[in-house]
Amino acid sequence: MAADAYERVMDLARRRGFIWPTSECYGSVAGLIDYGPLGAMMKRRIEECWRSLYVVQEGFYEIECPTIGQEAIYVASGHVKGFTDWMVQCPHCTEYLRADHVVEGGGRCPNAATLDEEGLKRELEDLDCPSCGERFGDVEVFAFSLMFRTTIGPGSQRTAYLRPETAQGIFTDFSRLLRFYRDKLPFGATQIGKSFRNEISPRQGMIRLREFTQAEAEIFVHPAKKAHPNFGRYAAYRMPLLADAQQQAGAPAVEMSMAEAVASGTVANEYVAYYLALTHEFLVRVGVAPGRLRFRQHLSDERAHYACDCWDAECHSERFGWVETVGIADRTDYDLRAHAAHSGESFTVFIQYPEPVRRRETRVVPRMGALGPRFRGDAKAIADAIAATDPRLAGGPGGFEIDLNGAPLAVTPDLYEVREVEVEIQGEEVMPHVIEPSYGIDRILYSVLEHAYDEEGIEDGTRTLLRLPPGIAPVQVAVFPLMARDGLDAVARAVVDDLKSSGIMAEYDDSGAIGRRYRRQDEIGTPFAVTVDYETLEDWTVTLRDRDSMEQVRIARAQLAGTCSALCAGTVRFPDLA
Amino acid sequence: MAADAYERVMDLARRRGFIWPTSECYGSVAGLIDYGPLGAMMKRRIEECWRSLYVVQEGFYEIECPTIGQEAIYVASGHVKGFTDWMVQCPHCTEYLRADHVVEGGGRCPNAATLDEEGLKRELEDLDCPSCGERFGDVEVFAFSLMFRTTIGPGSQRTAYLRPETAQGIFTDFSRLLRFYRDKLPFGATQIGKSFRNEISPRQGMIRLREFTQAEAEIFVHPAKKAHPNFGRYAAYRMPLLADAQQQAGAPAVEMSMAEAVASGTVANEYVAYYLALTHEFLVRVGVAPGRLRFRQHLSDERAHYACDCWDAECHSERFGWVETVGIADRTDYDLRAHAAHSGESFTVFIQYPEPVRRRETRVVPRMGALGPRFRGDAKAIADAIAATDPRLAGGPGGFEIDLNGAPLAVTPDLYEVREVEVEIQGEEVMPHVIEPSYGIDRILYSVLEHAYDEEGIEDGTRTLLRLPPGIAPVQVAVFPLMARDGLDAVARAVVDDLKSSGIMAEYDDSGAIGRRYRRQDEIGTPFAVTVDYETLEDWTVTLRDRDSMEQVRIARAQLAGTCSALCAGTVRFPDLA
Repeated sequence: MAADAYERVMDLARRRGFIWPTSECYGSVAGLIDYGPLGAMMKRRIEECWRSLYVVQEGFYEIECPTIGQEAIYVASGHVKGFTDWMVQCPHCTEYLRADHVVEGGGRCPNAATLDEEGLKRELEDLDCPSCGERFGDVEVFAFSLMFRTTIGPGSQRTAYLRPETAQGIFTDFSRLLRFYRDKLPFGATQIGKSFRNEISPRQGMIRLREFTQAEAEIFVHPAKKAHPNFGRYAAYRMPLLADAQQQAGAPAVEMSMAEAVASGTVANEYVAYYLALTHEFLVRVGVAPGRLRFRQHLSDERAHYACDCWDAECHSERFGWVETVGIADRTDYDLRAHAAHSGESFTVFIQYPEPVRRRETRVVPRMGALGPRFRGDAKAIADAIAATDPRLAGGPGGFEIDLNGAPLAVTPDLYEVREVEVEIQGEEVMPHVIEPSYGIDRILYSVLEHAYDEEGIEDGTRTLLRLPPGIAPVQVAVFPLMARDGLDAVARAVVDDLKSSGIMAEYDDSGAIGRRYRRQDEIGTPFAVTVDYETLEDWTVTLRDRDSMEQVRIARAQLAGTCSALCAGTVRFPDLA
Repeated sequence: MAADAYERVMDLARRRGFIWPTSECYGSVAGLIDYGPLGAMMKRRIEECWRSLYVVQEGFYEIECPTIGQEAIYVASGHVKGFTDWMVQCPHCTEYLRADHVVEGGGRCPNAATLDEEGLKRELEDLDCPSCGERFGDVEVFAFSLMFRTTIGPGSQRTAYLRPETAQGIFTDFSRLLRFYRDKLPFGATQIGKSFRNEISPRQGMIRLREFTQAEAEIFVHPAKKAHPNFGRYAAYRMPLLADAQQQAGAPAVEMSMAEAVASGTVANEYVAYYLALTHEFLVRVGVAPGRLRFRQHLSDERAHYACDCWDAECHSERFGWVETVGIADRTDYDLRAHAAHSGESFTVFIQYPEPVRRRETRVVPRMGALGPRFRGDAKAIADAIAATDPRLAGGPGGFEIDLNGAPLAVTPDLYEVREVEVEIQGEEVMPHVIEPSYGIDRILYSVLEHAYDEEGIEDGTRTLLRLPPGIAPVQVAVFPLMARDGLDAVARAVVDDLKSSGIMAEYDDSGAIGRRYRRQDEIGTPFAVTVDYETLEDWTVTLRDRDSMEQVRIARAQLAGTCSALCAGTVRFPDLA
């Protein structure tokens, strides 16, 4: 076939209403797409599946923050300074290009993303522009900010950015979330929403979008307690891991259980391993082919300096190779520490000890007997200020000064003593570590489409089909009257209504021959089709047809909705019906 | 009470995790809010209810377009030119203010929004700045664009805007949608997503947001066929309408059925009436108090010039008065005509006549007998070009010119004749009209919170509660072990898991006295609470408590999930359980 998988899938996706170029009548825009009726439905189903795991199973409530964020957030997060790509402008055709992509495309350096400005400049010198073919020569390399910039309100021109990730909204809400979860660790919050990345020249369709949907969870844990309380759920879950060591040795991925992965030190801790397994379960459930899915550990030079472990779930694409779809990282306390430093607010949790700890400490102890008569009503405030004084300042013979209602007050040595006292420590302030599973919904959706796409020789030619899981397919049941007359159409419409009231997305179609209607539904991945025929009018049964096997069973109309619900939920499989 | 309803509701909303100031640690931003865990859950439930009506019941597929749109879209839609507010800068305190709001606040002119630049300037002259109290005097009034501007990619600085409404994405996808719906009218598409409005100085909390969520449906109908095919569904639906006439006369709203509303000419057509009723049904279902809801027709001077009818659903707020939450308009062909003119693409539908229409028309008819021998292989192309020629150009004795493969060709009179022929017209190109129900989700959510808020004297003090419908409440069932010991806690956790697998949002709580736990759940609107006590361990029953009546029934644990599902779906009411 001339067209590659990407072209075949995207042709189907455009033709049938999954994915469209955006605002096409004005020439569309690279890196922006529209989800058409079927694509948007499928995308919502993937998001709902994600929620069923992260919000319902894990109990991490979802929050929703604006996509516009004030500058201070992204100064603190490091995006204003560091979220840039090196860019080169061709001196001949004036095209802007990503410098590392050009160098990688020139076959010079497989790891051009790790080169700095000078390194890129040097590599570019005797490379040809991929756009016009002329030699670059001595060109400048610029840092280009990948954040979309805008301004809020008039006048002051208050700078703001479209968020590059949903995570920062969760971090800046940390203290509100902590109170919501009643001041206890661990807790987590999630967010599904649009994020933005002003790519220099995106040319990879759905893989490199300027506006995309992320589903992120930020799980706040005690830094010394990275054993997951429900690790048992996934301890025996087996999956292939391509760790740092295998990559260095050029060896293939090794299949192991999560318990083994943690015990062998392949994965840093139970929290990371738990979400690796959950991610594998999720991706397979929404339709990623297990044989085209791998988990790859970041190499030490590729990993962010603050992360203590980081893995990518990668889905294989015929055109794009291994594509990162999910990142799972232990980000330590990097994010909270940055926001604490920039905002001056507290990002810690007070962790009470099971038993108070007693220890002896040197303290400044006020002498109430001397303070009371001399200062009367102010005595209490002065005593508190004395008690709060650093003993190192109170050691001298001249006393020290405190602040009383804004005025300095000399505290003479007769008003206090410095001595060892036994104090009871109730607990400590802890800055949590963050475990972050971060999902790129658009890339997952594209991977599912590519993995589901199939062409199959059948009796009367070829059929194109999407082998989507029933829970993800946009239309779940198609309903056909054999003929659009004799009351068959009315019965078929009633069947559609029945299915819809059971929460099943059903679609009526009476146009063309039955075979053609099957082909149409196969192509959009509809897993089941119901035909209402003349027998239906006699014995109240219909045929139910399976997309993948093309087999049919006769089933009582009264059982149809229940059966279809079970098939879509995956609690019953079609072969079990026969 | 000192605090008004808005303060009481927002205090609860902040405290309990419904709505938070955004990025508070950096000082928050007016017009931007975060939905906390409970608010985001409630918002999603409102959106799902909207989908159950518009996507499932009405069959209008949802699409998802980017929030960033290229400039051409908003030039065509008129937003670049017209989506502005008049702004004034106080010469004394330099504060930027919305000129019409200042004039209205000054009590001068209740309808300041209709004033032009000169009118506003005149009114401002002897008004005092509401910010610093100084007299404005002779000040300038500026038009301020309400669109957030940004740029896509490097170099060219391609201008783009954050969409001011989701509707334009549906309009620009018109021809793709038309093909998806197999070239037939009527059809509709929907979109739920973020829209943006760079307000000058928003001071009304959730009522005037710079980033907000819209749910819009665009329904494309034949301009001459505005009878709704399912009008029967709402023909007898009665609701109060405050039409133009009542407003002019200072009369109250009149309750009438939708059939009466259309028959009397109060509402322009069945389509508008149908979505008025559907909107009323939706708003009441999600928790707007029917007594605090009205539908107000736009006055002729307030209505957009192209709209042939327009109504606002308004919810009453103690602080803000009547707040527009939904707009329902017949926008005629304004939007499609604008995009057709600016893009040069077709925005029409070919409507086939039931029977072809025959009529006599003057045509240029090629003489094949003369063309064939002279032009051989080109004869067909030349004949087609001749037949497509306007007869008015072919009337002269000198013939005319056509284009043949890019070169001009003189067509002499012997090659054609101009005569009347009988032609068969199969149908016509029609530009559809658009019916647009447009919902502001954030304002609806706020209205529901305000209408649901209640304080009630009970035996031991006062309880604060949100009387939210069970289908909208963020947490649906709270589960308490009487004590967190003796296995009661384990049973209660198992009950939570059971309820969750039935799709019910359940929350476990064992902290504090039962009465305090009830208060906590009342305050967030949890409609039902289950208590696991020592009796549960003996006879496998639990108590189920109703939020509104505070009544309790004893129920078998095996029936709990089914009963709660039915209560949340509204198919069973609590009093029926006794």
